[in-house]
Amino acid sequence: MRTSRPSARHSSQQQQRSPAPEAPEGSRRGGQRSHGKNRGKAGGPYWIAGVHACQAALENPHRTVLRVLLSAEARDSFESRISVPLPPATERADKARFTAFLGAEAVHQGVAMLVEPLEPVMLEDALERPGPVLVLDQVTDPRNIGAILRSAAAFGASCVIMQDRHAPEEGAALAKAASGALEVVPLVRVVNLARCLETLKQHGCWMLGLDAGGQRLDGAKLNGRRAALVLGSEGDGLRRLTRENCDEIVGLFMPGTMESLNVSVAAAIGLYELVRKD
Amino acid sequence: MRTSRPSARHSSQQQQRSPAPEAPEGSRRGGQRSHGKNRGKAGGPYWIAGVHACQAALENPHRTVLRVLLSAEARDSFESRISVPLPPATERADKARFTAFLGAEAVHQGVAMLVEPLEPVMLEDALERPGPVLVLDQVTDPRNIGAILRSAAAFGASCVIMQDRHAPEEGAALAKAASGALEVVPLVRVVNLARCLETLKQHGCWMLGLDAGGQRLDGAKLNGRRAALVLGSEGDGLRRLTRENCDEIVGLFMPGTMESLNVSVAAAIGLYELVRKD
Repeated sequence: MRTSRPSARHSSQQQQRSPAPEAPEGSRRGGQRSHGKNRGKAGGPYWIAGVHACQAALENPHRTVLRVLLSAEARDSFESRISVPLPPATERADKARFTAFLGAEAVHQGVAMLVEPLEPVMLEDALERPGPVLVLDQVTDPRNIGAILRSAAAFGASCVIMQDRHAPEEGAALAKAASGALEVVPLVRVVNLARCLETLKQHGCWMLGLDAGGQRLDGAKLNGRRAALVLGSEGDGLRRLTRENCDEIVGLFMPGTMESLNVSVAAAIGLYELVRKD
Repeated sequence: MRTSRPSARHSSQQQQRSPAPEAPEGSRRGGQRSHGKNRGKAGGPYWIAGVHACQAALENPHRTVLRVLLSAEARDSFESRISVPLPPATERADKARFTAFLGAEAVHQGVAMLVEPLEPVMLEDALERPGPVLVLDQVTDPRNIGAILRSAAAFGASCVIMQDRHAPEEGAALAKAASGALEVVPLVRVVNLARCLETLKQHGCWMLGLDAGGQRLDGAKLNGRRAALVLGSEGDGLRRLTRENCDEIVGLFMPGTMESLNVSVAAAIGLYELVRKD
C-alpha cells in the first residue's frame, strides 16, 4: 500500500484535463507555501490518501493543501465527517484518475490530497505540549516513523524527535503509516542529538534509553516526572554517546523466547507503559 | 525492504553458474518436503534474508531449507551464532548474486535462504504451548502479520490464528517482518473462525474481542485465566459474528487525541497488557 508522487507524465496529463491544475487559492489554509532556503531537508509536495489522513490534513491549519481529489461515492460521507469546508476547487475523480496519481495499489477510499510538507517545528515549541517525548536515534524507515507518530498520537506523546541527518523526508509512505497523526503530533528534526538531549534535561525530562540489558521499564516508578524515551535503530540499538546522555537504560518486559521487537512496536509499548495508570 | 522470489530468468542463470542448483541433500533437515495435496493455501518456496530470520530457519527442525547463500564476509560470524552446522552445500555469494535473487533493495546482511513453507499446524497441537492466544479476523497485510508473530514470540504467546480464506500465504514479506518468529510461534490457519472460537473456549480460553468502545483491557483482572485476544481488520474492526462469540469486548487505554493504532501495534500492546505483572 504505497502511494507515490505523480510522475511528470501524470502531471502534464492532468494539466490538460483539469480546470484547476494550479493549487486553488481556497485550499491554501493559512500556512505559508513551503519554499525557500529554510526548509531544511523537507522534500516537495506529495500525495496523501485515505479518509483519516486527508481529514486530518484538511483540519490542520498549518497544512497547505494544494489539490483535493474526491470520488463521487465518497463525497457525502467525507464532507459530513470533516469540520472544515471542502476547498471550492475540490476535483471529482474516478478510479482511473486516482490510479494515475497514486498508482494502482494505493488504498485511497475515494479521497486523496496533494500537500506541501509541514513547516519545521522548533523543539522548544513542541515541548509546550504535555506528555512524554520520543527520541529516535537513527530510525530511518519512513513506515516505522509513521507508525510511531500514530502511536504517539494515541498515547498522548508531546512530540517525536529525529536527528535530521539520519531521518527520511516527510512523504507519502510516512504519512500513510501515520494515518493522520502527522497533523497532530509535531515531528521535530534536530541537527545535534546530544545537544537536544541536554535541552530535554533542562526542560525537566528524565531521559530513558530503551535498550537490551536495561532494568525493566515501569511507568509507576517515574512518580509523575516527565519522561523522554530514546530509541536506537533496530540493528545497532543506542549509540554509545546517546546511551551516555541518558539518565537510565531501561528494557521492556518480554517473557517470550525472542527478545526482539519491531522498533515501532517497541516505541508504542514504551509509551503505553509510561502513560497507563493502575 | 522486500525480498522477492527469483524469477525464472534468475533461476536459469543460476543453474548455469552454480555447482549445486538443486536443493543439497544435506540441507533437508528432517521435515517432509512440502508438496502434495494437503498443503492448503501455502505457496511455493520463497527466499528469506537476514541474520535473524535465517538463523531461526536453520535452527527450526520443521523447516525445509533448499538453498543457503552466504557472503564471504558474513560466514564466520553467522557460523559462530548458529547452533546447527551449516548445510554442506552452502553457496558462497557476492553482492551481485544476492541482488539477482532478492532484488537490489533487500537487506540481507550477507545471508539468504530458499525455504519451503512450513507444514500446516493443527489448532489443538498449537494450544499445547502455554501463553495467550491471538486470533486475527481478516487481517490481510503480510507485514502486519509478520510483525504480530514477532511480538507474539517476544511476549510468549501460544500461537497466532488466522482464517485461511482471508489470510495471505506464507512468503517473503511475512517472513521478513516476522524476523525469525515464524520459526518459533505456530501460525495456525482455520477454515471456520466461529468453530475455532468455540474450540478455544472448550480449551478454557477467555475470549477477549479488541474493539473501540470496550471496557479497558486489564491483564490483572484475568486472575490467571488463559486469554484469547481477537483482533479485526483495521478498517472494519470485528465482524458481528466474531463479536458475538467473544466473552468480553475490551479496548486499549489510549489517553491521546487519536484512537487509532496500527493493528500490529494494537496486538502487541494487548499481549503486553496480558502478560505484564506488577
